[in-house]
Amino acid sequence: MRTPVPKVTVQRLPVYLRCLENLPPGQAGISSDQLAGMAGVNSAKVRKDLSYLGSYGVRGVGYAVDHLRLQIGLELGLERDWSVVIVGIGNLGRALASYAGFIERRFQVVGLFDNDPAKQGTDVDGQVIQPLDRLGATVSEHRASIGIITTPAAAAQEVADELAEAGVRSILNFAPVVIRAPEGVDVRRVDLSMELQVLSFYLNHSGV
Amino acid sequence: MRTPVPKVTVQRLPVYLRCLENLPPGQAGISSDQLAGMAGVNSAKVRKDLSYLGSYGVRGVGYAVDHLRLQIGLELGLERDWSVVIVGIGNLGRALASYAGFIERRFQVVGLFDNDPAKQGTDVDGQVIQPLDRLGATVSEHRASIGIITTPAAAAQEVADELAEAGVRSILNFAPVVIRAPEGVDVRRVDLSMELQVLSFYLNHSGV
Repeated sequence: MRTPVPKVTVQRLPVYLRCLENLPPGQAGISSDQLAGMAGVNSAKVRKDLSYLGSYGVRGVGYAVDHLRLQIGLELGLERDWSVVIVGIGNLGRALASYAGFIERRFQVVGLFDNDPAKQGTDVDGQVIQPLDRLGATVSEHRASIGIITTPAAAAQEVADELAEAGVRSILNFAPVVIRAPEGVDVRRVDLSMELQVLSFYLNHSGV
Repeated sequence: MRTPVPKVTVQRLPVYLRCLENLPPGQAGISSDQLAGMAGVNSAKVRKDLSYLGSYGVRGVGYAVDHLRLQIGLELGLERDWSVVIVGIGNLGRALASYAGFIERRFQVVGLFDNDPAKQGTDVDGQVIQPLDRLGATVSEHRASIGIITTPAAAAQEVADELAEAGVRSILNFAPVVIRAPEGVDVRRVDLSMELQVLSFYLNHSGV
């Protein structure tokens, strides 16, 4: 069995992929130095990260761009389509629902949910907002594996429970609260005020 | 000089702070086990992380909640106000502009900018959207240190250059592109499709 890919490496794989996609068309090879410069990490880290995927650059030549893209994409499961439901259609939910990146990356939004009757039946980019009691049926029908929570904090845990109950395997939580999910359901939190706090840590320690 | 706080620890500090704030009022102490459980990390990591701040729990008693909150807040620079400008007022920019967490955490939005004349002069939560040529003046006037980019990818680098030129020290980039900033300007990227790719890595390796 191969070495498990460390979490920090997994988090950098999408960054490397984005860098490779930003290369000029026709560039066939890339050195770890160039990729490191684009990704904003050091080149030893790039080589180490890619070695987990079994990719080793050739001295003086580097990595074959097409092969590396394919390999990272396979690792990230991007050759498959993943169905996504979004719960809580405020500004942020709406932004995510119409986010072009979702489709390009094979993340298909298959359901939008909100408990506000005034929003139900209206649509975002052709996708109709449904009441929460339709969540289970939609998840089953489309075999959705990813749920995105963009509700207020107070509603997030209940929504997470319903998503897990409905069969979602992975939750991306934007609500500013720590939620728990049952064993087997992976939760990632994106807390925008926490991102700002990390920025302010560095501002705070830079003598501004 | 004290040991520099590792990046991964910095990223967990806001999580610990949120957990402490979610404790029932009146709880005076917390064990590393309880904090670890709430934050979703192991307790050895909690103890190690907090040791960088000079905080050591007492065996059988744990950490004093008020003191720990204060200390983490000081590290994160949360006793200061940080002024923030947001460039690109689509759904995401709008969501961030009205995001309650900003204020609670002492991040004050002092300017919204968009190059769409139809949006200029309209407001989000009382804050008027301005044309981009007002960016420099607003940053100077409010001594804004944080710039948030929520433009399309194609505009992001130019906006980053303008933010840096105007004197912003820290950029939070939501545009799906890697941007560069001059020495001394810290860039953090929040790429929502990358967050999804990390989820799909784990789905892909879980045998779904």
